Amino acid sequence: MNDPFHPADIRALVFDVFGTVVDWRGGVIRDGAALSAAKGIAVDWPAFADAWRAGYQPAMQRARAGEIAWTNIDGLHRNILDELLPRFGLEALTEDERDHLNRVWHRLDPWPDVLAGLRRLKSRFTISTLSNGNVSLLVDMAKHGRLPWDCVLSAELFQHYKPDPEVYLGAARLLGVRPAQLLMVAAHPSDLEAAARAGLPTAYVPRPLEFGLGSELRDPPGDRHFDLVAIDFGELALLLGA
Amino acid sequence: MNDPFHPADIRALVFDVFGTVVDWRGGVIRDGAALSAAKGIAVDWPAFADAWRAGYQPAMQRARAGEIAWTNIDGLHRNILDELLPRFGLEALTEDERDHLNRVWHRLDPWPDVLAGLRRLKSRFTISTLSNGNVSLLVDMAKHGRLPWDCVLSAELFQHYKPDPEVYLGAARLLGVRPAQLLMVAAHPSDLEAAARAGLPTAYVPRPLEFGLGSELRDPPGDRHFDLVAIDFGELALLLGA
Repeated sequence: MNDPFHPADIRALVFDVFGTVVDWRGGVIRDGAALSAAKGIAVDWPAFADAWRAGYQPAMQRARAGEIAWTNIDGLHRNILDELLPRFGLEALTEDERDHLNRVWHRLDPWPDVLAGLRRLKSRFTISTLSNGNVSLLVDMAKHGRLPWDCVLSAELFQHYKPDPEVYLGAARLLGVRPAQLLMVAAHPSDLEAAARAGLPTAYVPRPLEFGLGSELRDPPGDRHFDLVAIDFGELALLLGA
Repeated sequence: MNDPFHPADIRALVFDVFGTVVDWRGGVIRDGAALSAAKGIAVDWPAFADAWRAGYQPAMQRARAGEIAWTNIDGLHRNILDELLPRFGLEALTEDERDHLNRVWHRLDPWPDVLAGLRRLKSRFTISTLSNGNVSLLVDMAKHGRLPWDCVLSAELFQHYKPDPEVYLGAARLLGVRPAQLLMVAAHPSDLEAAARAGLPTAYVPRPLEFGLGSELRDPPGDRHFDLVAIDFGELALLLGA
């Protein structure tokens, strides 16, 4: 159990990105549909997006367990993609087409509340990514979506993936704050639980559309404790006086 | 000798910060004068600023040589400051006052051409710091001066100080570009020479006011080669078509 939460202690906010800041599923479906239209191939892109994302945790686990050498997310995404293409009738894609599709994760759009909320939060706090996505992916995504980060922090800098504590503690160290001064913001309770174990206060912003309209939350909050709960980044800014 | 320089190859720019982007000497003098006024102590702040900066290369060299454990710039600045205070009649400063003065490096202002130039460059390229300053210092400085970095890269991420090649090569790796696609921008030829040895193209932007009006360049270019030379960041943007 961490110390009692005081909003006035907060100096900086770090954000989970895939699902919390950007709509990865909608982005993969959108770019996939454009590829289908260009090549005249019918593909179940929602199923494709879900299968791609489903390969992600096991791939990180293999990297974490040392079964494969440290690989950044671009590399993990590409490994999963190459396995996935034949299952969806896409084995004829060229190397350039595969590389372009793999980089869809660099071109994802933010949820509608994100830009206005981040701008408010940035006026009062340091705001940074804290994502398993690699630095260049996060930088490209920020330029694509005009995300106004003060800093781009990634698991890549620590050679550890979330939820390893090295990631949360490393972010506090680089930002020059104590863990208790660094608020972790995520749509995934498991990420927040790991942050709390490392001493960070937590803000839960559920994203019920992450897996599509009418889907269930894959990581439901249950009765887990968060220091803040906000419906979107606008309410988060309000709760923090920004 | 690197490959011939083609501006069209450039994907990202990394910038030296102290002296190239911000006027460290003017900032130290300004904050020092405010401290003098508040406490009624006369101090030769230009000499103080120069002495503080002069301690910096030897301190990094001790860290590089392993004589002292890896220390970030905030720590190196503080060590130098503590040695300097008695020489300038400031030994009575409290811990809070010392800490505040040490963080003047987080509050430095950019040269007048910087903001407009960076905004133009950012519209076409990824722009990042590549400084020996630590991440939190660079983030605070960017918030203070509204520097629109896409990414904040620091020697701290590589546990090597410039001009060690690990810093330049690490920046290219994290930004997902080849060294030949990453332009190093600096007011200091020695920094650019080290970048070129690591395979980066170089842009020299002299800052004749770095050591004060009427001072000489401490690191004159002589007949050294740079891929680009610009009088300020506006001309740099022009040369790069941004």
